[in-house]
Amino acid sequence: MSAVAVHGVGTSHFGRQPERDAIALAHDAVREALTDAGVDRVDAVWVGTVFGPAGVAQRTLRALGITGVPVLTVENACASGTTAFLEAHEAVRTGRYGRVLALGIEQMSTAFSGAITPEPSDPEQRGGLALPALYAMSAARYLHLGAVTPAELAAVSVKNHAHALHNPRAQYSGSYTVEQVLGSRMIADPLTVLQCCPTSDGAAAAVLAPATGGPREVRVRGAALRSGRVWDHSSPHVWGYDIVRDTTADALAAAGLHAATDVDVVEVHDAFTIGEIVTTEALGLVPEGAGGKAAAAGVTALGGTHPVNPSGGLLSRGHPLGATGLAQLAEITWQLRGEAGGRQVDGARLGLVETMGGGVSVLDGNACVVAVLEGP
Amino acid sequence: MSAVAVHGVGTSHFGRQPERDAIALAHDAVREALTDAGVDRVDAVWVGTVFGPAGVAQRTLRALGITGVPVLTVENACASGTTAFLEAHEAVRTGRYGRVLALGIEQMSTAFSGAITPEPSDPEQRGGLALPALYAMSAARYLHLGAVTPAELAAVSVKNHAHALHNPRAQYSGSYTVEQVLGSRMIADPLTVLQCCPTSDGAAAAVLAPATGGPREVRVRGAALRSGRVWDHSSPHVWGYDIVRDTTADALAAAGLHAATDVDVVEVHDAFTIGEIVTTEALGLVPEGAGGKAAAAGVTALGGTHPVNPSGGLLSRGHPLGATGLAQLAEITWQLRGEAGGRQVDGARLGLVETMGGGVSVLDGNACVVAVLEGP
Repeated sequence: MSAVAVHGVGTSHFGRQPERDAIALAHDAVREALTDAGVDRVDAVWVGTVFGPAGVAQRTLRALGITGVPVLTVENACASGTTAFLEAHEAVRTGRYGRVLALGIEQMSTAFSGAITPEPSDPEQRGGLALPALYAMSAARYLHLGAVTPAELAAVSVKNHAHALHNPRAQYSGSYTVEQVLGSRMIADPLTVLQCCPTSDGAAAAVLAPATGGPREVRVRGAALRSGRVWDHSSPHVWGYDIVRDTTADALAAAGLHAATDVDVVEVHDAFTIGEIVTTEALGLVPEGAGGKAAAAGVTALGGTHPVNPSGGLLSRGHPLGATGLAQLAEITWQLRGEAGGRQVDGARLGLVETMGGGVSVLDGNACVVAVLEGP
Repeated sequence: MSAVAVHGVGTSHFGRQPERDAIALAHDAVREALTDAGVDRVDAVWVGTVFGPAGVAQRTLRALGITGVPVLTVENACASGTTAFLEAHEAVRTGRYGRVLALGIEQMSTAFSGAITPEPSDPEQRGGLALPALYAMSAARYLHLGAVTPAELAAVSVKNHAHALHNPRAQYSGSYTVEQVLGSRMIADPLTVLQCCPTSDGAAAAVLAPATGGPREVRVRGAALRSGRVWDHSSPHVWGYDIVRDTTADALAAAGLHAATDVDVVEVHDAFTIGEIVTTEALGLVPEGAGGKAAAAGVTALGGTHPVNPSGGLLSRGHPLGATGLAQLAEITWQLRGEAGGRQVDGARLGLVETMGGGVSVLDGNACVVAVLEGP
């Protein structure tokens, strides 16, 4: 078994880019990752995509002159990109392949107008319980319990849009106030549009290989995948809390860490503001019920004790489903190398990536990938 | 690293079954595989499917009371099911998981009417070079070179439909003559409808775990995956030949075998008659250019020297894309246990599975998985 390192990362710009095709977006990400790693060949490729056209990886690689290497495509809802990373990591760790490219691709603007179309076979989605409504239920419960206030929900959006001011590849950014966030168009009560991730096009990639101790290598300390149980009505927690908590415990154990508070910077799945709040609690960065207060107090902002989503997160960088996990990984890699520019977390040495993929049907459960990384 | 065995297999019926949903089909396959293995739990699941639907595996497993285990979905065109098998094998081999379910699912009848819809971004398919046309070009070239005759092409269909008379789960079967095959409706000259695989619904599954030497275990001697180069105009061979030859060489080397002729029974990817002919040559079962003659002479029939597709193959059992590879694996498992009934290859001890997934675009290459198995 080999210690595995991220040797290079790359991403496209994120945003609505219907004029560019998925292959062009992926080309940007892969070319940058290969250049970053200082290589022009890989031994295998794992691709994460949810809706993205068959053969997109092969066409991208052909355009880069990389042909004849094994290509495996994985789908795991919003965690597809992180699942591609996890499988690439496993392949290098076990010596199956020497140098592996993990690539996430999604072009949503040409596939959907508005929200993702419900699966016709899915009773929850047919009944209106699409993901914005699902997260809105979590937010409503937190409000009911007094575990969060509307202003605390909005604080997550304010923070992540402000972080994204320093991320030139982010889809959206801005200096919003809590009042502006709360006053924006309602999507699923209590979540306003500025509390929901946008429809995004983008790609992100990483080159993984055995760790050699190089000065720009980011070592994978541990990584874990869980798939969720059917929605557990006996759990006191909202949807997603339990799987994030348990997957984080697996990843921390693999990394030899006791708690997520040992980590200096994290990128988490903030598809909606309540998502980031629940996730910071489930990770153990803050106590249960304290996530909203932490966001409002700046604990999770750049300069705070536990900076969360310095990239702007899904809310601001964007959420091209299959690409998201590898965009998160790229951000943490830049952070741990000290290359994150105006959004750099000073002295970041340990980082964590968390992505939760919601099932098409709530009752079908979900998936979560967590990885812990260490800078050079 | 553990030696890996197939401990149980199962399949649905194959055919047009629009009245049943994909979950019901998968349920049949998984339930049978678990019963066959004598287990009711697995530690992880790999699912192969091309057209979905998302969450189908999770819903199937929930119906069987299996929740909370990692589920990974892979897509690799027609080789999706065999890719799920390969990844499950790798997970057991490296000790990542103890007991793994590989599941292939596809319901095509409700997704398409007629041929698979071309990707709008794909110039070859837009131009008419869908898979029947592609295979027809291979057949036309073989005819031009004198490497096959129309009657030899038809002999593959006659053989596989006759084999399927002994397979109660096959979509089609029949005692056809060469003249009937050649006289059936033309699809893509020279391939008539009886030389083309049908649109199918079905599922197949296998339970993999470390080999313990049990009396019903079928050991995985070796398995390999390749993704194809861009169509190589400098190759003297038709599309697919080179990748099948090279992947077979990898799998035979992993199995410690010198040649595919050491194997007693094979299931190959006969999506079209010419496909089986080219594949038997690329495998090395027969010399190059001798595949058609071998089929016509009964060499590849039940009772022949090198029986090919005793199940009826894709042409007769059917071709539910993501399920096909695991249906092939189930057939070889039954053969190596001596449980194949009227289509049993006497004394079969070594078997081989080959699946080739065509890329959406010819220029994007393709994928091939080959596995070598050994009976108890």
